[in-house]
Amino acid sequence: MSDPKKTSLDASQPLDPRVETLVNELIGRVADKWTMLLLEVLEDHGECRFTRLAQLTPGISQKMLTQTLRQMERDGLVHRTVHPVIPPKVEYRLTDLGQSLGEAFCGVWHWAEANLEKVETARHAFDGRA
Amino acid sequence: MSDPKKTSLDASQPLDPRVETLVNELIGRVADKWTMLLLEVLEDHGECRFTRLAQLTPGISQKMLTQTLRQMERDGLVHRTVHPVIPPKVEYRLTDLGQSLGEAFCGVWHWAEANLEKVETARHAFDGRA
Repeated sequence: MSDPKKTSLDASQPLDPRVETLVNELIGRVADKWTMLLLEVLEDHGECRFTRLAQLTPGISQKMLTQTLRQMERDGLVHRTVHPVIPPKVEYRLTDLGQSLGEAFCGVWHWAEANLEKVETARHAFDGRA
Repeated sequence: MSDPKKTSLDASQPLDPRVETLVNELIGRVADKWTMLLLEVLEDHGECRFTRLAQLTPGISQKMLTQTLRQMERDGLVHRTVHPVIPPKVEYRLTDLGQSLGEAFCGVWHWAEANLEKVETARHAFDGRA
């Protein structure tokens, strides 16, 4: 992209294909709607139980929430604490790594807020032509 | 997130639910692996034909490339030019809006490059426990 610091992904520079593959795979993993929304929810609300996360993330299914939290835990983005009580209490919070990814996604949130109307206008124009 | 400019998505601030729904929907649309990778490819390589985009985006199927480009065109991120020649020549380039989204995603690319090893380490630790 146009950031001068981002030299290693600049197509004009030689890039280790192994690094490129790994970055692409990682982008594929984290560039997921639910991951982005859960990073936002956990950043805004701090440590949360599963049911609270489900309430705070409208539209997510139980299955998708379970799956996304498990992937985020595996990637080191989320820490899962099991409290040994009856019934079991499980809480999720962002790790430092998850926090830093949330901050990196800030630019995308800003973009979405700032460009909402432009996208809506483009869609109407496209649908009018189709 | 923690950016002080981002007041309208701060959970402590009242937020128009319509705006929140639209931003979430938009994030869902753009937070897609292939959209992110195509923004990167089009930014690095400029205007490209379909077959060139397919070569530059390893792992993408023809169907997914067609579908992603169509969504990006509908959202106003990509401009599609059809040259009236035989055989037809179709080229794709980023619009200003697409360019600005690519720049917003820069932070995520940087994060991925910078934190590749931490994620790998977390995954190995998780898989060792599982």
